[in-house]
Amino acid sequence: MPARRRATRKKTTAKAKKWVYLFAGGKAEGSAKMRSLLGGKGAGIAEMTNAGLPVPPGFTITTEACNAYFASGKRFPPGLWEQVEQALARVEKSTGKKLGDPRNPLLVSVRSGAAMSMPGMMDTVLNLGLNDESRAALEKLTKNPRFAWDAYRRFVSMFGRIVQDIPAEKFDHALEAKKKATGAKSDTDLTPKALQELVAEFKEIVRRETKQPFPTEPLDQLRLAIEAVFGSWFGRRAVDYRNAFKIAHDLGTAVNVQSMVFGNMGDDSGTGVAFTRNPNTGARELYGEYLVNAQGEDVVAGIRTPSKIAQMKDELPKVYTQFEKIAQRLEKHYRDVQDLEFTIERGKLFMLQTRSAKRTARAAVKVAIDMVREKLINRDEALLRVDPMHVEQLLLPRFDEVEVENARKAGRFLAKGLNASPGAATGRAVFDADRAVELKGSKQLVVLVRPETSPDDFHGMIAATGILTARGGSTSHAAVVARGLGLPCVAGVAALDIDLAKRQMRVGDKVVREGDAISIDGTTGEVFLGELPTIQPNFREEKELIELLVWADQRRTLGVWVNADTPEECRLARELGAEGVGLARTEHMFRQAERLPIVQDMIMADDAPGRKIALAKLLPFQQGDFLQMYEAMNGLSVVIRLIDPPLHEFLREYADVDVDIAVMRATGTDGAELERKEKIERRLQQLHEDNPMLGLRGCRLLLVYPEILEMQIRAILGAAIDAAEKGIKAKPEIMMPLVGVMGELDRLQQQVVAVAEAIFKERGRKVPYKFGTMIEIPRACLIADEIATKAEFFSFGTNDLTQTILGISRDDAQKSFLTKYVEQKIIPADPFQVLDRDGVGAMMRIAIERGRKTRPDLKIGICGEHGGDPSSIAFCHEVGLTYVSPSTYRVPVARLAAAQAAIAGAGEKDR
Amino acid sequence: MPARRRATRKKTTAKAKKWVYLFAGGKAEGSAKMRSLLGGKGAGIAEMTNAGLPVPPGFTITTEACNAYFASGKRFPPGLWEQVEQALARVEKSTGKKLGDPRNPLLVSVRSGAAMSMPGMMDTVLNLGLNDESRAALEKLTKNPRFAWDAYRRFVSMFGRIVQDIPAEKFDHALEAKKKATGAKSDTDLTPKALQELVAEFKEIVRRETKQPFPTEPLDQLRLAIEAVFGSWFGRRAVDYRNAFKIAHDLGTAVNVQSMVFGNMGDDSGTGVAFTRNPNTGARELYGEYLVNAQGEDVVAGIRTPSKIAQMKDELPKVYTQFEKIAQRLEKHYRDVQDLEFTIERGKLFMLQTRSAKRTARAAVKVAIDMVREKLINRDEALLRVDPMHVEQLLLPRFDEVEVENARKAGRFLAKGLNASPGAATGRAVFDADRAVELKGSKQLVVLVRPETSPDDFHGMIAATGILTARGGSTSHAAVVARGLGLPCVAGVAALDIDLAKRQMRVGDKVVREGDAISIDGTTGEVFLGELPTIQPNFREEKELIELLVWADQRRTLGVWVNADTPEECRLARELGAEGVGLARTEHMFRQAERLPIVQDMIMADDAPGRKIALAKLLPFQQGDFLQMYEAMNGLSVVIRLIDPPLHEFLREYADVDVDIAVMRATGTDGAELERKEKIERRLQQLHEDNPMLGLRGCRLLLVYPEILEMQIRAILGAAIDAAEKGIKAKPEIMMPLVGVMGELDRLQQQVVAVAEAIFKERGRKVPYKFGTMIEIPRACLIADEIATKAEFFSFGTNDLTQTILGISRDDAQKSFLTKYVEQKIIPADPFQVLDRDGVGAMMRIAIERGRKTRPDLKIGICGEHGGDPSSIAFCHEVGLTYVSPSTYRVPVARLAAAQAAIAGAGEKDR
Repeated sequence: MPARRRATRKKTTAKAKKWVYLFAGGKAEGSAKMRSLLGGKGAGIAEMTNAGLPVPPGFTITTEACNAYFASGKRFPPGLWEQVEQALARVEKSTGKKLGDPRNPLLVSVRSGAAMSMPGMMDTVLNLGLNDESRAALEKLTKNPRFAWDAYRRFVSMFGRIVQDIPAEKFDHALEAKKKATGAKSDTDLTPKALQELVAEFKEIVRRETKQPFPTEPLDQLRLAIEAVFGSWFGRRAVDYRNAFKIAHDLGTAVNVQSMVFGNMGDDSGTGVAFTRNPNTGARELYGEYLVNAQGEDVVAGIRTPSKIAQMKDELPKVYTQFEKIAQRLEKHYRDVQDLEFTIERGKLFMLQTRSAKRTARAAVKVAIDMVREKLINRDEALLRVDPMHVEQLLLPRFDEVEVENARKAGRFLAKGLNASPGAATGRAVFDADRAVELKGSKQLVVLVRPETSPDDFHGMIAATGILTARGGSTSHAAVVARGLGLPCVAGVAALDIDLAKRQMRVGDKVVREGDAISIDGTTGEVFLGELPTIQPNFREEKELIELLVWADQRRTLGVWVNADTPEECRLARELGAEGVGLARTEHMFRQAERLPIVQDMIMADDAPGRKIALAKLLPFQQGDFLQMYEAMNGLSVVIRLIDPPLHEFLREYADVDVDIAVMRATGTDGAELERKEKIERRLQQLHEDNPMLGLRGCRLLLVYPEILEMQIRAILGAAIDAAEKGIKAKPEIMMPLVGVMGELDRLQQQVVAVAEAIFKERGRKVPYKFGTMIEIPRACLIADEIATKAEFFSFGTNDLTQTILGISRDDAQKSFLTKYVEQKIIPADPFQVLDRDGVGAMMRIAIERGRKTRPDLKIGICGEHGGDPSSIAFCHEVGLTYVSPSTYRVPVARLAAAQAAIAGAGEKDR
Repeated sequence: MPARRRATRKKTTAKAKKWVYLFAGGKAEGSAKMRSLLGGKGAGIAEMTNAGLPVPPGFTITTEACNAYFASGKRFPPGLWEQVEQALARVEKSTGKKLGDPRNPLLVSVRSGAAMSMPGMMDTVLNLGLNDESRAALEKLTKNPRFAWDAYRRFVSMFGRIVQDIPAEKFDHALEAKKKATGAKSDTDLTPKALQELVAEFKEIVRRETKQPFPTEPLDQLRLAIEAVFGSWFGRRAVDYRNAFKIAHDLGTAVNVQSMVFGNMGDDSGTGVAFTRNPNTGARELYGEYLVNAQGEDVVAGIRTPSKIAQMKDELPKVYTQFEKIAQRLEKHYRDVQDLEFTIERGKLFMLQTRSAKRTARAAVKVAIDMVREKLINRDEALLRVDPMHVEQLLLPRFDEVEVENARKAGRFLAKGLNASPGAATGRAVFDADRAVELKGSKQLVVLVRPETSPDDFHGMIAATGILTARGGSTSHAAVVARGLGLPCVAGVAALDIDLAKRQMRVGDKVVREGDAISIDGTTGEVFLGELPTIQPNFREEKELIELLVWADQRRTLGVWVNADTPEECRLARELGAEGVGLARTEHMFRQAERLPIVQDMIMADDAPGRKIALAKLLPFQQGDFLQMYEAMNGLSVVIRLIDPPLHEFLREYADVDVDIAVMRATGTDGAELERKEKIERRLQQLHEDNPMLGLRGCRLLLVYPEILEMQIRAILGAAIDAAEKGIKAKPEIMMPLVGVMGELDRLQQQVVAVAEAIFKERGRKVPYKFGTMIEIPRACLIADEIATKAEFFSFGTNDLTQTILGISRDDAQKSFLTKYVEQKIIPADPFQVLDRDGVGAMMRIAIERGRKTRPDLKIGICGEHGGDPSSIAFCHEVGLTYVSPSTYRVPVARLAAAQAAIAGAGEKDR
């Protein structure tokens, strides 16, 4: 209705803000740099257009327009509609078609497009502009009544569903009924007549649901669609997602209006998606799928099985060659792997979207390496291209890809959710925490499945090998706890229909009952039926990763050591690139099977002579361990921390001895066993502490029981002498735990020196060693200048520092309030995973500054678990630590993260 | 033997250091300022001599000489002996007598004298210089053979015992045997002949014990006595004492050699001790005792009962007048109460010692006030003269002085030890910790008596009302723990002979068996047999204290508030001078009998609605309490902290419910009671935390259970509205516990504001209130600048800060390592009693600086127990806190300590 259009145009004023950016005729007003204004999709289309690629013309309504829309109470801001009409006119001119023209109608797609891709935003509406008249024109122009009716019925249902919010099943039911009535097996079997009838039925559904007739005026359709896109920005799922990922709510979404091209106009038409390189392996090959004679939604819906992109070479060779060139050009342009959407209309290729491709860890590494070889990017860029946590995934057990493919073919793929905590897990599905504990008790692997988890499920989560939830994002209780426990977790699988009463879940017609085996991949978010075999990666075979890490080593200034407690761990860590042992926890050696009873004897001894007898038995074990560790680390430092935990931790098996005794007494049981238990109970009562974390442990234990210190120093230095005699270069560094006051360090050093002198005299040989301390008590940070007069090195115990500086017990907080705090964003992240810079970090800065004031070359490391977290590693680089010491498999992660921190730091300096 | 003397004199060189300081002929080389060189006694004698007082001439060997003696392997340093001889010659000249002169012999006393008085140092040797010849001369000169022989037998036994280290009982046995053989009832009944025989027997004892004849050469006697004084510096008791009181071992002791005067030369002679004012009451009167015809040791030994000094007025009026004048002169000279020793020889008065008098708390206050009135000192000096902890003693229950005197007369005084922890306690003596617990169980008061205590006795110490030990100083385990527990303690009563096997103790012939009542006074260190009644002091009657505290209030700049949880405490605290309530712990109100079951119902409720039902029942209780507290503090601030402890603390009575359940099951008991207990057990397991101190408590609890916050805010503000309606000026300040991150404070403030607005609307009236926070987590100190944007006041919770900054659990550490740390001086003091300035103090400085950067007038208080410790109060003044908030009875302590800090601070500035 041109009259109406003209009428509104009069309102246009020259002063209105620019709300609309055109892309048409090989030129776009926007560019890739305008991502925040035009959204990712709009910016990509503009860039492609300007690059001369075949992009259907259209225009982008800015994110600012979206914000203005909400700011003025859901009204279009002044000038917006006029600019839309002007841009539409340009598109009409460029295509030679007109929206709603009964002779040559323009059809458009309308899509949302925020700065970052976001689930829950409005889907695509295709074929907008159709009504009875333009449909007839389409039939006439294409000479294809079936295509025209099919396009029309798709548009009516899509518009009804997406713009008008009518439940999809209303349309689906009508479609299914029609197929049944006409004996059609698939949608494509429907005749033009059946489709025509369906359009009428669909319009009736819309009338019934909206109490309005279906809007036949194309400009009304456009306005409603734009409003629907805007509205979807504050839709529940989008809001939840932004909350979950801490994305600001005032970014707004852009709207892309683009002229339609049709992949379903015959066998010279088609549509597809493709990656410029294989996103699974990183191989340099076009990777993707396409469908002949189809529209985009057919590929996504999975109704027809698409062909591999390579097949296009045979079927549409000219188009394939053109596409291949465009793909290469885009990859060069963006200097990264691209994820492309395209449509072929009657032999003509149109590019609909390009964006950086998501890729697996393996592909990320290979692409980074290859692109440097291809001189597309430099090494720094390559290092920044790989997420350090991806590196750990390459080293975690994972499902065999062949088996995953087979499972997929066998229809065992169940659903996909959020990859909340990486790793692969298989086990029997259970639907409540108590059952998880029961089955675990009978030695079965279980995957705990819950709508969502709560603190009450904690015992079940510990018992499980993996967690699967239907609701919740990456900061949900399940995700936070699973990452904390190192358990694979797939969260927010909306497709799961869990019936707790029946103890089963359903996805479509697939039903999983309690006890059925399932497999979850926390790295990809995929869930499969049955057990998938896992494979253990071999670092030595990861040639490309090794090369990348060598580059990282050249770039980083931060050392990467390792927390390792056994000779085996030392050997593995060295292979993974560790440059020293930053923490060997001697108490872990105490817990091994043949040693624990000796340790318990020591604890039960009545006096120092009794303890010494037990310690003498432990000495050869510890000395032997240390010798092997020195051998493994030959020439590298081995920092050995003396015993740290409270003694009652070695008597855990007797936790319920008071109950046993009461029962024995109540039932008249008597004799030696009762006496033995009573003795243990008495000792446990003596050792009992209300807050053992703040109790008799660490160096306090060594000062109260100096005979333990003596044994450990004898083992450490004895082994170093053994090593020297074998020609091995041992570099032991003796580390004191939990030092808080100088009186402790003074005495400890005196005792260490005394034992060292004694053993050097006995053995007739001296070996070098260093004396240092953990910094894991706030007070130690404050008096670091004094401590550095005695200590030759510091190592931050950020686990304990986090506990004391935040006043949060790590063992308890997760099940009580900490998870809630993360969920409710009272704190930004679990401080035991991501270093709390404003608290713990601030104290570390104080300690570093004061420590180096006394001893400018003071070696300072970190051996808390933060040493394996990339963002925490960046902080460690920033504050000038000498090294980080993560757990074994985090060593490569740390090498890359340290390099990235160095690159980012250099960037900071340039600014 | 003049020949010998002359021979050694030749060795004298002019270059030797000055080791000896003379006092003779009204002039002394030393002065009161040379205390560290001449010791306290030597400096006092020099000062008295120069003041023209009658002091027997003599000389002081310096502490440096003592150190030189040990430095050169127990040899006299060059020049020392020569200087001794020269000084001796001057004394001989001054007295007209000569050491060893067979015609007119000089006799001297030899005494140790360190810079501070110290038990275990060498006692006095009197009458040195006697041998057969000089004794005969003495007899001739005095015409008193009995006196001469008595002096001789005393000297031989004293020299043998003290210089030659011969056990005293050897001489005592001989003396007793002689008395028996001659039928003498007391020493004075012995005839000259008997005494002569005794001298021969004593000499034989010395020959037998030392394998040497008794030294008859006076110069040998003098040399040996000087060496014995030096040697006593490293005697076991002296070393122990110095260790206990952290006195340096290199101070050394001086030796005072002074010519003898004799109080036992007839009825015109005598000896005594006196104070210039009454040291118990502070009354301005000469107070002391004297004995006619006696030597000093007779007074000390208690063999004859001395007379009150007032009696001297009648017996020796002239001497008394002279002494009274001298006493006044000395008090004016030193501007403090003096403790004097004197001897009268044939009507002539000699002053032997003057020093500042020890005095009771009551006397200290009265003397300070009186001396200001007498214009002897100014108010600042008066304030500095009173130990703030003395103030608390005046307010603690104490033994009735009349009853103490009666007990003493009735021979019920048992022994005196170290006043290790103040207060009076009576109870049945028990000799092991388990028995203490048992008797406590049968509702009996017990005093735990041990040779010394160890961590194994802890449960017994908790069960006791007082602690008594035979060994250990003021930093012994017993002393440290008792002070921590607030229990009276008398430690280190060496006279106690404890027989653990027989469960009894003995002092001389007095035996105390298990179960016998005893009374210990931790303020004086005295122990009595039987029960002594205690009296509760009344502050209002302490007029002088009240006056002193008014002066203190005028001087101090630091506010003194109070920790009070009930209306009664508020009323008492206000009487004691509190200027506001710095901490009202709402959970203490939860624990009262009629309320606890409601609190337990709340905890056991399954959900928020269930909790709300219980909270609604609690509301009127809390609101009523607050109203009464506002009434008591009318016009003053009342800082109310919302609930702090973990919930399981309210279920303490069910600690062993798991054992109960196991026994019930084992014995087949069943039914409702088992179910009830099982439900409690499940809840306890849910609430269980490994480290509750770092767990779900404080504001975390309020965020997890916002309904608790709502009830408490309703009670606080509802009561304030009630108060306003009654015309009472309520100033509630709402304080959040355990805040560590801004996310907490933001949400808490929002919730408080929401509840406040609701209640103001409901009641149709607004009342003012403040919103603030505890600073008791290290992280809160670090982000104090941010916190101050929301919080209108801070209050340091130094108990929790000490726990987290030092990583020490207060509940556990005392029984495990902390006491050991204090004993072994790994830390200087229990950080829960005396604020750790380098750790906790350093963090407080950070918080104060950052908080006041945001809000320059920020009100900052302290409500940890350090607010009642004088040295910690000094720190609080120094760092600029607004107020301290101690427990009720520490309010006067804090007022005085704050004034002293202000005076010291002004002194600092002057420098």
